[in-house]
Formats: sequence, structure tokens, C-alpha cells
Amino acid sequence: MPTTLITSTQNQFIRQLTQLKDKSRERRKTELFLIEGEREISLAIKGHYEIVTILFFPELFSEEKLSELSTKQISVIEISKEVYQKLAYRDTTEGVLAVAKSKSHSITNLKFNTKNPLILVAEAPEKPGNIGAILRTADAANADAVIIANPKTDLYNPNIIRSSVGCVFTNQIATGSTSEIIDFLKENKINIYCAALQASVNYHTQDFTKPTAMVVGTEATGLSNEWLESSTQNIIIPMQGEIDSMNVSVAAGILIFEAKRQRNFL
Amino acid sequence: MPTTLITSTQNQFIRQLTQLKDKSRERRKTELFLIEGEREISLAIKGHYEIVTILFFPELFSEEKLSELSTKQISVIEISKEVYQKLAYRDTTEGVLAVAKSKSHSITNLKFNTKNPLILVAEAPEKPGNIGAILRTADAANADAVIIANPKTDLYNPNIIRSSVGCVFTNQIATGSTSEIIDFLKENKINIYCAALQASVNYHTQDFTKPTAMVVGTEATGLSNEWLESSTQNIIIPMQGEIDSMNVSVAAGILIFEAKRQRNFL
Repeated sequence: MPTTLITSTQNQFIRQLTQLKDKSRERRKTELFLIEGEREISLAIKGHYEIVTILFFPELFSEEKLSELSTKQISVIEISKEVYQKLAYRDTTEGVLAVAKSKSHSITNLKFNTKNPLILVAEAPEKPGNIGAILRTADAANADAVIIANPKTDLYNPNIIRSSVGCVFTNQIATGSTSEIIDFLKENKINIYCAALQASVNYHTQDFTKPTAMVVGTEATGLSNEWLESSTQNIIIPMQGEIDSMNVSVAAGILIFEAKRQRNFL
Repeated sequence: MPTTLITSTQNQFIRQLTQLKDKSRERRKTELFLIEGEREISLAIKGHYEIVTILFFPELFSEEKLSELSTKQISVIEISKEVYQKLAYRDTTEGVLAVAKSKSHSITNLKFNTKNPLILVAEAPEKPGNIGAILRTADAANADAVIIANPKTDLYNPNIIRSSVGCVFTNQIATGSTSEIIDFLKENKINIYCAALQASVNYHTQDFTKPTAMVVGTEATGLSNEWLESSTQNIIIPMQGEIDSMNVSVAAGILIFEAKRQRNFL
């Protein structure tokens, strides 16, 4: 495999990649993003992401292992320790990074292989850790899609890739405004279950075997009125403690797996 | 209310408090810890924690609000902006802190008001964010106890207090070695359900209406053999995705709320 070697952190290309890592705007402009770690890169390839370049630091990642990652003709660059440390996220020690092309996450791209899709919708989630945990849950549940309404961050934020352990690549994901997502769900006759305190019934009393979208809002302010007004039924997880709230990714997990249980995990 | 004023970050007492914030060893030695935020302090008082001192920065927290927090004769100290910034955790802007006495979390202290307790056990959890999310779930579920086996951190780590939004004070919590916790559960005839891949059945097939301990391990290595050998039944959340793992606090939430559902949320 022919490789280039880059040893200077001042190299123009490396400076561009640093921008990709740090700046959402740069990722949007170039439609490129950075992936770190062998498993994450493998999952991106499996998820049909196009890998443009692979960068490796040979002390941590051998050239032999590279061949497992790069089946197609892509550019491979060997980097020095300094360059690796500049590009790597926190204290990771995997020694391998990839530049990949981002995908369109337009709601109109969503395709379902079932008559009764199970969808998780999160409105304006803020913490990358929660988004990552939600994507892991959706992967585990083999949910038909994850939809982020009014996103606060782009999906290719390194914190999201990291905390999703690559599940950002394994799920079918759409993003869009709350209005267009509601329109989409209604057009497709998908029941909208909003997790809310207002006018809600206990979640486990509902039939989630039909086309189902579970919709969760932020921990601070809950769902917007637009969602509550478009709800098939508001649902609540009964809480009996001192604090009337749960971590949003835990709440989403409880709702999605209640649907899975009702569907006999099929 | 008679108050002292401290304006210097070099003040001996303030330096001690900084140690309490930063050092688990100091918290253990003095049996004191720091709580930040009005809601958190209120929950600690409600949870029968003894508050020793309250510190407030008047620009952010008025003296009138103090009276809601301090019903008993406790020492109240007004602090300057510099002192507040030194003691406050990250970028919080609540303006109030308390020094509280830690409680014993010996397993022998646990008391149950029911014949069929529901207990959540986490072995060696590492991330404060996950411990906080688990404590919030246990609060919401009104679980009878949370037990941390082989703890990696003390409960009064400011990250845990923060991410639990004070639920570290609302739950009955015990810590101890895996061996002593297993002995306790067996003596009290509490069924042990270990979340594990080995020899496990789907979680929803089990009857969790009897005395139940749900036991979860770390994401990296799972539960120790000691737990697996003492298990009444190993259980698994069926996963159908690319990644065979979930966030540990999400998994714990799914298990605990399946038990709640079976118990009709009583």
C-alpha cells in the first residue's frame, strides 16, 4: 500500500483536519468529518460511509491491520506521534483515524423494511453523551430509525461518535425541524407517543406494536408545544421519588424496550 | 442570622474546603463533604444529612433564601466572588454551598419497609455520570436500595452529586465488597438477577415481583465471576444491533422499570 508520511503539525492538510475535529461549521462546509478508532472506522465502512483517507501512527497501529480497514483504493497517510496527538480525541491510544464523507440525513431519505416501524425521536438533545447513549440503545433495539428534531449539534461531533461507540454509523438517522418531522410521521401514519407530564397516561398501558414513534424532549424543558399538540397520546413513566425527572437516555431506553417487549423482540 | 465573611482564597478554612471538593481521601478522613446548589442542599436536608456550614455568595444567593435552607443553628459564612469561584464546581451560578457530614453506607444499615424489596446493584461502576443516572432512575422507581459493590469512587464525589441532581441523598445507598453484598442478599433471601451474556434468559421472562436485586457490571468487563456464581438467574436484554452493548445506566433503567411494570408500579 503506497503511503505518504506527515510529521509536521503545521502541515496544511493536518491543520484542515484539526478544524474538522473541532468545528461543526467546517464539517458542514466540507461535508467531511474525522473518525477515530478501529471499531468506529469499521462500523462506518459497514454503514456504507465513504472513507477518503486513513491516517495511522505505526507505533500504535500496525500497517498490517490497515488492510482490514481499507478494502478500496483510498489514500493512506503515516503520521508522527506529534501529528497523531494533535488529531486524536482526548487520551485515546488507538493510533488510527479516518476522514469520511458525511451523509445526508434528510427525513425524506428514511426507508422502512417493515409495516410497523419503531422510531425514536429526540427533540433538541444537548449532551453528546446522552445522544451517544440513545444511539447505542437504538442499535441494540434494532430500531428502524432515530430522528433528531431541531438538532443543537451535528451528528459528526467527535463526542457523539465516541459516546455512541460508533452507533452513529449503524443506525438509520434523520434530522430536521420539528414541523417537517411531524409532517413526515403523520403522512406515514406513524403513531406519535410524546413523553410528557401533561395529559398523559402510563406508558405501559399503550399498544406499541403498531407504527410507533417515541418522542422525548430535553430534561430541562421537555417537549415543545408543537409536539404535544401533534401527539397521538402523551405518555409518562410513573415516577415515585423526590425528583420528577430521569436521565433522557434512560427514559428513552425504558420506552423503546417496552415496545420491544410488546413486540416479542421481533 | 449571624454570619462571618471570608474574602480570601488563602483562608485556611477555604483551603480545607477545596481539599474536600477535590480529594476523596480528604472526604474520607474528615467524614465531611461539599454540596453545591439549592436543590441539592434541600434534598440532603430532607435525606437527614447533617449540614455543618452554609456558604453563600450574596450576589447570586440572597440572605433571605438562606432561611429556607437552614432551619437549625448552623454556621453561615458569606463569601466573596473569588472564594465562590474557587469552591464552585465548574460553571455553576447558584451561589450557595454547604459542608455536610457523610453517612455510613454499611450494608448492615439497610432497612426495608416491604417484604419484596427491589434493589439495584452496580459492581465497580466508574463513570460518575453513569452512577448519577442510576441514582436518578432508582429515585424515580422508588427502589428500596442502591448498592455499589467494590466501589471505585466515594459517593460524595462532586461529579456524582451533580449528575445525580441530588438523588445521592434521596436513595438508601449501601457500599461494600462483592462478597459481603452477596452474603447479605442471600441471608435476606433476595433473588439475584445478574445482567450477563453467559447462560442467561431474556429478562422479561422472569418474575420480578418477589424480593429482587438487579445486578449490573461494567461496560468493559461485565460482572465478576463471584456474582455469576451466586446468581439466582442470569438475565440478558436481547440485543439485535451491530454492537453488543448498551450504556450501563440505560440497561439498569430497562431492568428496574420492567420490575416496576410487573409490580403495577406499586
